[in-house]
Amino acid sequence: MVSESLTIPPSNSRSKAKALLIGLQEEICRGLEAIDGKGKFQEETWDRPEGGGGKSRVMQEGRVFEQGGVNFSEVQGDALPSSIINQRPEAKGHKWFATGTSMVLHPKNPYIPTVHLNYRYFEAGPVWWFGGGADLTPFYPYLSDTRHFHKIHKEACDSINPELHKVFKPWCDEYFFLKHRNESRGVGGIFFDYQDGSGSLYKGQNSNGKAALKSKEIGAKKLSWEELFSLAKSCGQAFLPSYAPIIEKRHNQSFSDSQREFQLYRRGRYVEFNLVWDRGTIFGLQTNGRTESILMSLPPLARWEYGFQAPIGSREALLTEVFTRPQEWFTDKTLEEKCLPLGALD
Amino acid sequence: MVSESLTIPPSNSRSKAKALLIGLQEEICRGLEAIDGKGKFQEETWDRPEGGGGKSRVMQEGRVFEQGGVNFSEVQGDALPSSIINQRPEAKGHKWFATGTSMVLHPKNPYIPTVHLNYRYFEAGPVWWFGGGADLTPFYPYLSDTRHFHKIHKEACDSINPELHKVFKPWCDEYFFLKHRNESRGVGGIFFDYQDGSGSLYKGQNSNGKAALKSKEIGAKKLSWEELFSLAKSCGQAFLPSYAPIIEKRHNQSFSDSQREFQLYRRGRYVEFNLVWDRGTIFGLQTNGRTESILMSLPPLARWEYGFQAPIGSREALLTEVFTRPQEWFTDKTLEEKCLPLGALD
Repeated sequence: MVSESLTIPPSNSRSKAKALLIGLQEEICRGLEAIDGKGKFQEETWDRPEGGGGKSRVMQEGRVFEQGGVNFSEVQGDALPSSIINQRPEAKGHKWFATGTSMVLHPKNPYIPTVHLNYRYFEAGPVWWFGGGADLTPFYPYLSDTRHFHKIHKEACDSINPELHKVFKPWCDEYFFLKHRNESRGVGGIFFDYQDGSGSLYKGQNSNGKAALKSKEIGAKKLSWEELFSLAKSCGQAFLPSYAPIIEKRHNQSFSDSQREFQLYRRGRYVEFNLVWDRGTIFGLQTNGRTESILMSLPPLARWEYGFQAPIGSREALLTEVFTRPQEWFTDKTLEEKCLPLGALD
Repeated sequence: MVSESLTIPPSNSRSKAKALLIGLQEEICRGLEAIDGKGKFQEETWDRPEGGGGKSRVMQEGRVFEQGGVNFSEVQGDALPSSIINQRPEAKGHKWFATGTSMVLHPKNPYIPTVHLNYRYFEAGPVWWFGGGADLTPFYPYLSDTRHFHKIHKEACDSINPELHKVFKPWCDEYFFLKHRNESRGVGGIFFDYQDGSGSLYKGQNSNGKAALKSKEIGAKKLSWEELFSLAKSCGQAFLPSYAPIIEKRHNQSFSDSQREFQLYRRGRYVEFNLVWDRGTIFGLQTNGRTESILMSLPPLARWEYGFQAPIGSREALLTEVFTRPQEWFTDKTLEEKCLPLGALD
């Protein structure tokens, strides 16, 4: 059943969304090349036998980035996989169209966080929606970097509607969570899915989540196609200013072999999240996507170590005790007390 | 509905199965320490809040083994996860008991294959079953090593019943398959599940598979609890003689940095299989298992490289063209022709 209040997208919705997302890929790649100064993105275009294709761009062994991938795709199919139909039953029996840009960067220096971004637009019969977000995964985190990343993304959301961020921030915490480790992937950022303007901001899988509660507080929040388009645009364009200053600040900090080992160990958690829990990865593999492009998100090198425990009171323990748990980064003043003694404030 | 022909297990079935599997852990660890000569297994015992527990044994940085884990567990619960109920609907609504021993070894030398073993026994209300197997994942494979591993496991199956191996070998090929890569994990071995003696040997998820066809050829094959117990015992005890000679033959072969890099790259596939496709891993994570013990199977170090292609005609290309595809290792004479020019015969 189609929600009565679903607005009809403009007639050129697909080409508008595509242009936005391919432009975002271009803008991000140019920005990252400028920051890196050495690495260049190599592009491969590909076709999907069932319809559509994409452009994968990968940078390897740059000055800052050990590996970075920015992937654009525009794909069509006859039937969406059950994982999506469960969330959007109105899409059942309809051909679908999806376009998206996704990015994962694995910096060499453990003081620079790994970062992920994905924005996407779907149409399937009577329904359409925007989804996406960006989240940060530090190894040796700083509170100031974390706050900066969140601040820029909050401003991007606020520019569309000041009620959005209080739903999209906890939604990110919920989504990027490793249940089997009882840990967040990192410090979060923003995440939203199934945004069709029909009034309910939160359409996650866990209806007991914090994002659901925040969504109830806010009540119906109807947004037009154009507003949601602007949301994706505004958030996508927030990425470079949210991340570039962190690189500038950290890339000259020297690190030891054991800090590098810890980074590789924590990259193992990134692999675990992406292969076990990430709906985007599962969607790609279920829809016969291009495996090399989907798994571009995996790190160039990762370690596992049975029974690893960070020493009590260490910088490494601070990561799992404070920075891989959902936090109120701006308002919780105890965070400063925890970070200060370990030099993790600024 | 319970199959009428299901035999009743002996009254001491749980303690017998447990003793077999804990004895197998002990025997394998002693054998591997003798082979390694330097590395020792460190043991940790653990309890599971919902009932049961286990003994995890891990060797790190041995002479032969970069990492090896052999895990015994005996666990109980109120309700099996849906992934198992789908396969054994008679278990629904019953408390369950499971005991198992599983092992993964990651050798340092890329000429020695990674190897996995798992044997397990389940009871849930009116149903019970044995499952398990062993499979080999080489990086720089030899046909003779592959044939040796298969021969010893075939003999172990044949000692119970000469019809078993022709089902359990293709079943292994089906199970250890990475659909998103269109590759087998390695050269296979044997695999069986849901063996309750009721007559149908093959109870896999893919009823169009080769194992299903072979199972049909053979027809009903009723086996007693004791025969299936002996099957698990015989196959479990086959492991050391199937693998130790390969180590003896290969561990002094020198290897280059680029061969090491290739090994790490291929270990990435091992991670992909275990986290995306392996039912044992999914079962463990779904039943609130001990994460560190479940993920003990992951390699100490792994690489991903976007778009990697082995040079045509190389030893590395031989792996994916011949050794990660299901093969008739004993009877297909063209394999020798493919291996000979690359020195991969013996």
